[in-house]
Amino acid sequence: MNSFGQLIRLTTFGESHGPAMGGVLDGMPPMVRIDIDEIRRHLARRRPGDKPCVSQRRESDEPEFLSGISTDGLTLGTPIGFIVRNLDARSGDYDGYSGKFRPNHADYTYYKKYGIHDFRGGGRASARETVSWVVAGSIARQWLEHLGIAIRAEFIETNNVADTAAEGDSTGGIVRCSVTGVTSPVGEPVHDKLHSRLAAAMMSINAAKGFEYGDGCRSAYMTGSASMDIFAPAGGDTPRILSNHSGGIQGGIANGMPIEFTVYFKPTPTVMQRVDSIDAAGNPCVIEPKGRHDPCVAIRAVPVVESMAALVLADMTRLDNSLSIHLRQ
Amino acid sequence: MNSFGQLIRLTTFGESHGPAMGGVLDGMPPMVRIDIDEIRRHLARRRPGDKPCVSQRRESDEPEFLSGISTDGLTLGTPIGFIVRNLDARSGDYDGYSGKFRPNHADYTYYKKYGIHDFRGGGRASARETVSWVVAGSIARQWLEHLGIAIRAEFIETNNVADTAAEGDSTGGIVRCSVTGVTSPVGEPVHDKLHSRLAAAMMSINAAKGFEYGDGCRSAYMTGSASMDIFAPAGGDTPRILSNHSGGIQGGIANGMPIEFTVYFKPTPTVMQRVDSIDAAGNPCVIEPKGRHDPCVAIRAVPVVESMAALVLADMTRLDNSLSIHLRQ
Amino acid sequence: MNSFGQLIRLTTFGESHGPAMGGVLDGMPPMVRIDIDEIRRHLARRRPGDKPCVSQRRESDEPEFLSGISTDGLTLGTPIGFIVRNLDARSGDYDGYSGKFRPNHADYTYYKKYGIHDFRGGGRASARETVSWVVAGSIARQWLEHLGIAIRAEFIETNNVADTAAEGDSTGGIVRCSVTGVTSPVGEPVHDKLHSRLAAAMMSINAAKGFEYGDGCRSAYMTGSASMDIFAPAGGDTPRILSNHSGGIQGGIANGMPIEFTVYFKPTPTVMQRVDSIDAAGNPCVIEPKGRHDPCVAIRAVPVVESMAALVLADMTRLDNSLSIHLRQ
Amino acid sequence: MNSFGQLIRLTTFGESHGPAMGGVLDGMPPMVRIDIDEIRRHLARRRPGDKPCVSQRRESDEPEFLSGISTDGLTLGTPIGFIVRNLDARSGDYDGYSGKFRPNHADYTYYKKYGIHDFRGGGRASARETVSWVVAGSIARQWLEHLGIAIRAEFIETNNVADTAAEGDSTGGIVRCSVTGVTSPVGEPVHDKLHSRLAAAMMSINAAKGFEYGDGCRSAYMTGSASMDIFAPAGGDTPRILSNHSGGIQGGIANGMPIEFTVYFKPTPTVMQRVDSIDAAGNPCVIEPKGRHDPCVAIRAVPVVESMAALVLADMTRLDNSLSIHLRQ
Repeated sequence: MNSFGQLIRLTTFGESHGPAMGGVLDGMPPMVRIDIDEIRRHLARRRPGDKPCVSQRRESDEPEFLSGISTDGLTLGTPIGFIVRNLDARSGDYDGYSGKFRPNHADYTYYKKYGIHDFRGGGRASARETVSWVVAGSIARQWLEHLGIAIRAEFIETNNVADTAAEGDSTGGIVRCSVTGVTSPVGEPVHDKLHSRLAAAMMSINAAKGFEYGDGCRSAYMTGSASMDIFAPAGGDTPRILSNHSGGIQGGIANGMPIEFTVYFKPTPTVMQRVDSIDAAGNPCVIEPKGRHDPCVAIRAVPVVESMAALVLADMTRLDNSLSIHLRQ
Repeated sequence: MNSFGQLIRLTTFGESHGPAMGGVLDGMPPMVRIDIDEIRRHLARRRPGDKPCVSQRRESDEPEFLSGISTDGLTLGTPIGFIVRNLDARSGDYDGYSGKFRPNHADYTYYKKYGIHDFRGGGRASARETVSWVVAGSIARQWLEHLGIAIRAEFIETNNVADTAAEGDSTGGIVRCSVTGVTSPVGEPVHDKLHSRLAAAMMSINAAKGFEYGDGCRSAYMTGSASMDIFAPAGGDTPRILSNHSGGIQGGIANGMPIEFTVYFKPTPTVMQRVDSIDAAGNPCVIEPKGRHDPCVAIRAVPVVESMAALVLADMTRLDNSLSIHLRQ
Repeated sequence: MNSFGQLIRLTTFGESHGPAMGGVLDGMPPMVRIDIDEIRRHLARRRPGDKPCVSQRRESDEPEFLSGISTDGLTLGTPIGFIVRNLDARSGDYDGYSGKFRPNHADYTYYKKYGIHDFRGGGRASARETVSWVVAGSIARQWLEHLGIAIRAEFIETNNVADTAAEGDSTGGIVRCSVTGVTSPVGEPVHDKLHSRLAAAMMSINAAKGFEYGDGCRSAYMTGSASMDIFAPAGGDTPRILSNHSGGIQGGIANGMPIEFTVYFKPTPTVMQRVDSIDAAGNPCVIEPKGRHDPCVAIRAVPVVESMAALVLADMTRLDNSLSIHLRQ
Repeated sequence: MNSFGQLIRLTTFGESHGPAMGGVLDGMPPMVRIDIDEIRRHLARRRPGDKPCVSQRRESDEPEFLSGISTDGLTLGTPIGFIVRNLDARSGDYDGYSGKFRPNHADYTYYKKYGIHDFRGGGRASARETVSWVVAGSIARQWLEHLGIAIRAEFIETNNVADTAAEGDSTGGIVRCSVTGVTSPVGEPVHDKLHSRLAAAMMSINAAKGFEYGDGCRSAYMTGSASMDIFAPAGGDTPRILSNHSGGIQGGIANGMPIEFTVYFKPTPTVMQRVDSIDAAGNPCVIEPKGRHDPCVAIRAVPVVESMAALVLADMTRLDNSLSIHLRQ
């Protein structure tokens, strides 16, 4: 429920305005050198407050590592526990929200499910959660980089974000991601297909509404004869594949081509408008805009998409490796 | 790897041209009356050969139930084992395919992963696998129907399938699904969000390339102010929600509105053309079209989408029920 | 619930007097040659009716393999589905048991849990279930044998079984098992310790009441100075260990010495006596002895213990292999 | 690997001489009032240094809760993250151990598995890990107490611990546990039997070598006629059961009688003697006794046994509850 992955598994905790976010990254291979500055760099890419058009909450986001890494920076093979303190949680901003259901947020459904909810900043449902994903993903990707795997995502602007922000409104956006260097047949048939796992991972990200890979949704409008990725001899074990309609995945397993997928994000649900709603007692109320929010969550989602992709690929690489060749004899 | 779900879990087996497909549906609640004819009806919707524009392979698809259902038709709470024999497996059709990698199929990646592959009809990667999903899903949905939950999917034609078939080509298509009657807060926060689970389930279906829910991919082009689902008082515990941009899910948890999602399918990779490829030895070869294939797999995917949705919802309903109210005191 | 293992996982189904027992063995490495006669040989060791002092139910126990093995006997890496038909299920023997709770059996607890129970032969709770474990375990051990791992269990007689049988009573017994050739550091720290997994596996076997490994229960009466397994240099990477109080496992991980454990079985709960009990309606009743039962279940448990050990070791070998050396760089 | 449980799951981290131990307890039902002093009380029972005959390491063991509990002490239904700092970690004591394999410890197997090991205090393999189990278990048992379930374990002395300690030696010991008030049919058939789960949990505890429930190992020497737990009418739904050979569990499911099991612990492997061994380079070495160790680990294991029992029962209660009655219609 709050865990993600099988052999390399991230378990997280934390409410937006509680003492800390944090997690446990279990299953990382031992003897991988971890560069903490590299983790900080990805956290900075995700951090609000550093750029125009994103939330003004200012957090240092300094991770504290509590286990699993030796004093000289090597993974031990044991679980990596870490926390990130919540320092700039201005819960006062949310007093007016107490018990009020903000539209398109998780306030109502959490309250319905649990009968109790930390309304401050969205509590557990806040996108602040993704700070832990970036810490963990930034560890996993350092191992993947040793294996020659690179993950790069980019933001695709759909509406003019600056204009939108100026109007007190918000806008959706798109993040496109490409993973190169996956030479092993990573991915499992049937129910753990690589793209199924990627889909689940990406749809876990706050505000994600759509996922596609390869030709994606537009393939529904294509013909088979226009969609073929032809195999050609290449002299060795590995064929050349002349196109990449498949997005690097066939039958759920990586075929060696770049793995390409896209995630579609809705607009931030909070806008700078008064909104009619109801409270936990069922009474009408008005929600006054306060707090600090992103006009376009997709911008900060770029390192989150990369981090979740890293966690999926690391997990499935270990899973595929469990079939490594001496096992087959 | 070949299992799906947590508390209600389907585990399947079977190669397309092997003796049988089959599965084990574990975790079904006891005392649910199962109508076998209803299962047959959904199998018939999925079956090739019964309608124009789909594969001409003719299978009776009669499931044999081996356990878990009492002689008078009630679930026992024990695992339901079932098999569906492969009767019309004309493996001869595939002789020419032996060791040849068909483009956009899983032949190459399976061979790369395992060093061995049942090339006949795609082996384990065949969409024939979905016969077991429909058996299991059609059991799960009978329980959901008792709970007042209805699942309906429909095919959206994108290109003219009949024309395509006549030309020996294939086309993609779209399946849209709606689930009504989910009144419990089904879905788990963070990593088991209802839409994450649905995404993983739908992307498991052969040829699925994209998934979206609610406003979906187009929400990336929308503004926040145009996307709000406003809560209004309704006299009781359950508010009225004035629109459904959220597709029935907020924060990963069902909010009581219809759950709406869409799956995009690529064209069948096999078309009636000669195709250049290579074989398992790395040598060039030509694949001559034989076998029986669907010009548009999305048509037969309709009951598969419904079945996978049923399995997800049944699993997560049991999971949510594990928090039922007397536990909270 | 009806699954066992993580990377090599067995899922089973079947009621004692239903149409068939069966299972799905998922995750077996590909390219392992399977000798069906070897499976039959282990099934024969488990089979009732072939020797004095065991149940007289006669089943041919011929497994039918439905997938996952190529026509020439190699595993495909895909799930292995199999069934074993119930042919000699004399349900008539159990008519008198309908709705009556036999003491020390699972009739009452299953009925309480599910509100319905297949009383015939114990239904799902019957030791007939173990036929599927032996099929699956006998596949897994053929792979382990390729890796040089051998599993041997033996029955230790506590009371005179023949005498007991003659008196219409039953007796408990002991099975001791030794696994040799485990040279990899199989086993995971903390919550997947090799001996924890073995304990869970062995305690799953019907009638098992106790588990110990290495010095076991008697170590509670020993001193530390008398329990030490001293390491001595041996010229290479692998030290000599001068004794085996640890039973081949230290910190949950195999240390290269023989893995030794013991399972204690209670007497068969059914004896040839009239017994007072109650029925499902809460009314007093008398249970008349019928059916065919083992005076000492531990005798037939020998191949079951071996099979469950094989499944645990195969699963954890694949898990350990997922950390194989190129991953660590 | 470092997680335990399914619906109520504990994931832990921490090396004995690293910055902190800690964990995430996921899946606790919401709205359970948590008394932190009660947690402290159980931590004090486990703490070394407070009583004769146990390790002299002095830790305050004050848990810091980071999430999942509201400011007024109610569980939120979200994961409970916590840490316990390692304050009195005198790593200097272990300098002499660096790279040396202590007999019967996990030094050698961890090093073999990971190629790297935190030798200080046993690193991840230290029994200090159990501090997190007691924190989590003490939360779970507060919920169980609301349900009327009580867990009590006691230490059974086998040798004279004080004498042993005076001699610089150590001794094994026994912990017996009884769980009362389990009125629901907790436990799952076949592979998640309540006693299988308890066995795995107890065998996870450092130094545990044997597990039994009900009549346990001695049942191997008993006859069936002397082992029967007879059902007698009791006026209502729930029968009287006239004895408890079954230890409260039949067919893996709780039958309403007290659940009784016993765990056997080996002596602490470290004794105050010089011991010959080898180091990580394969060279002979001598281990000089230093550090602070318990002459009998079983004494402090009492609250650990209770805590692990609480986690198993809480998890399986939620699992059983997922079948609560409205689901069965």
